[in-house]
Amino acid sequence: MTSPASLTHSQWIYRKQPLGQIGAEHYELLRRPLDTTLDEGEVLIEARWFSVDPYMRIGQSSKPTYDSAPHPLDTVQAGAVVARVLASRAPGYAAGDWVSAYSGWQSHARLRADALTRLDPQQAPLTAALGVLGMPGRTAWFGLTEAGRPHAGEVVVVSGAAGAVGSLVLQFAKRHGARVLGIAGGAAKCAWLRDTLGADWAIDYKAHPDAASLGAAILALTGGVDVYFDNVGGMVTDAVIPLINRRARIVICGQISQYSGGLETPELGPRLLHHLLYQRATIQGVLARDYLHRMDEMRRIVAPWVRDGRIIFEETVIEGFEQLPHALNSLFTGEHRGKLLVQA
Amino acid sequence: MTSPASLTHSQWIYRKQPLGQIGAEHYELLRRPLDTTLDEGEVLIEARWFSVDPYMRIGQSSKPTYDSAPHPLDTVQAGAVVARVLASRAPGYAAGDWVSAYSGWQSHARLRADALTRLDPQQAPLTAALGVLGMPGRTAWFGLTEAGRPHAGEVVVVSGAAGAVGSLVLQFAKRHGARVLGIAGGAAKCAWLRDTLGADWAIDYKAHPDAASLGAAILALTGGVDVYFDNVGGMVTDAVIPLINRRARIVICGQISQYSGGLETPELGPRLLHHLLYQRATIQGVLARDYLHRMDEMRRIVAPWVRDGRIIFEETVIEGFEQLPHALNSLFTGEHRGKLLVQA
Repeated sequence: MTSPASLTHSQWIYRKQPLGQIGAEHYELLRRPLDTTLDEGEVLIEARWFSVDPYMRIGQSSKPTYDSAPHPLDTVQAGAVVARVLASRAPGYAAGDWVSAYSGWQSHARLRADALTRLDPQQAPLTAALGVLGMPGRTAWFGLTEAGRPHAGEVVVVSGAAGAVGSLVLQFAKRHGARVLGIAGGAAKCAWLRDTLGADWAIDYKAHPDAASLGAAILALTGGVDVYFDNVGGMVTDAVIPLINRRARIVICGQISQYSGGLETPELGPRLLHHLLYQRATIQGVLARDYLHRMDEMRRIVAPWVRDGRIIFEETVIEGFEQLPHALNSLFTGEHRGKLLVQA
Repeated sequence: MTSPASLTHSQWIYRKQPLGQIGAEHYELLRRPLDTTLDEGEVLIEARWFSVDPYMRIGQSSKPTYDSAPHPLDTVQAGAVVARVLASRAPGYAAGDWVSAYSGWQSHARLRADALTRLDPQQAPLTAALGVLGMPGRTAWFGLTEAGRPHAGEVVVVSGAAGAVGSLVLQFAKRHGARVLGIAGGAAKCAWLRDTLGADWAIDYKAHPDAASLGAAILALTGGVDVYFDNVGGMVTDAVIPLINRRARIVICGQISQYSGGLETPELGPRLLHHLLYQRATIQGVLARDYLHRMDEMRRIVAPWVRDGRIIFEETVIEGFEQLPHALNSLFTGEHRGKLLVQA
């Protein structure tokens, strides 16, 4: 281990609200010598894997979202990390321990011990704490089971199905006995959904010029939709909503098609609420934080599946701390599968 | 009572799908001598009050709605009536009895007794069977209590608040201890909502040029919305959805702003589903027929309120069977309050 005293503290500072894609003007990389001072009860951590999540774009909206104010400018971009303890003045933590924390896009952080979650590398891969056993896994599990409530034999459609949450929802729905259609961008992702994740069907939405064409393809495969787990919104959702069956459950987990400007000034799309009336269907928004106190319920069921390899948890790892803003952009445009991480 | 043998059987025949407003080409009035023949078990009724309901426009959509096929052309317009028995060959029914039935826009009908519901003029005004103690009342009661689930102190917003369903939802929500905002078109309706029905607030949506202006007015009065009971859709709903509070319940009971063409070719409106995510809110479509078997639950609670005058049930009665298609149009444009009926 490098001596803490000789280390550089690198931080990505959020400087300016992006209205579309993220560019060089929105984040600034600061570097300075690391201050290794610790007060009693504090721990110094070095982040090794950084989570890159769609919700980061929601926090950049100037409108109220799930938080009353946007991510503050001129502060470190918030986010979850997996980190190693470099030094500790807190009982129970020692150099070399692995933890997860919410210290954001910076190489190091000085935190009180109660801001850390201890990780056991023997129980699961460390990065699972940012994925299947962390926020995305919790979102997928509770979003599907509490709001989607799939039954055996029902048709579950997942948008963003190759993403961190979608790829888990697809597999969790299969375990419930549902017939599952994954919607993703590109033939390669669709092949992966079918061949590796076990989707009954997969559709490349990019192969369709409009919602009518996509909807016809979905209807031809499924005959109708009982549960729609939506990570994407926009044209894909326009295609699915007219196909809902009686008492369908639509879960709004994300609307990533709208995160590059559409939260600020809404896009126009077809009015579709009348379909809810016809089918007496439900739309429910879900958010990971509402289920944080119930992590043990999810881990009890899902952790053994991860340990035994019965759940595929794909990660796409981009090397280099300096790639973080680029990685955030590529969440919305890139070819990654599963959970997107940046490794320092 | 006129002798049945000398009567004319008048029928409004649905001839052509209207894409916008209803005109002379969409319905045809047929008149012929009344055939008074009855088989054993049949009853001849003479309709006195005809229900005119927004759902009639849904049935005219060529797209699947809650029924798999549209209202058939060249048949009598379906709908509920309050009628008097003219002649009976069914046990238990005699000339002069009052009933409700679903015999549509025709002056007379020959029906089997199991298609009739007996009405007792001593228990409630006869036309209540088409309103507060019928389909609109059931929709208002179960839509509000089962999907809206208002609590004392919460803010309930009702669109189409001067209509048959909305005017009841407003009063039912007040009885739950909620603070209620009614949205309607025109200052006179709004004064009625406040002064007669007891709304805490009323807003004339026609006084606002767009959803942003309407939304600002709603926010200024309410501070945020816990339950939105939507009969209207369109611009009013665009204004309300961004104002929902945490875990808000949005009830889609009607979307009347969309019934003159928007069900066929959807209008464009702002994409708003991301607000569901932020607030972990729910949208649920409700339909009266799902609660038909639970009428006794509603009547047990609501009928005494009607009897004691604790619920105001306003009716607008248009005189003349020949006014029926015009009355259907005026549902969407007119100045009526409460339940719209045509009296023969």
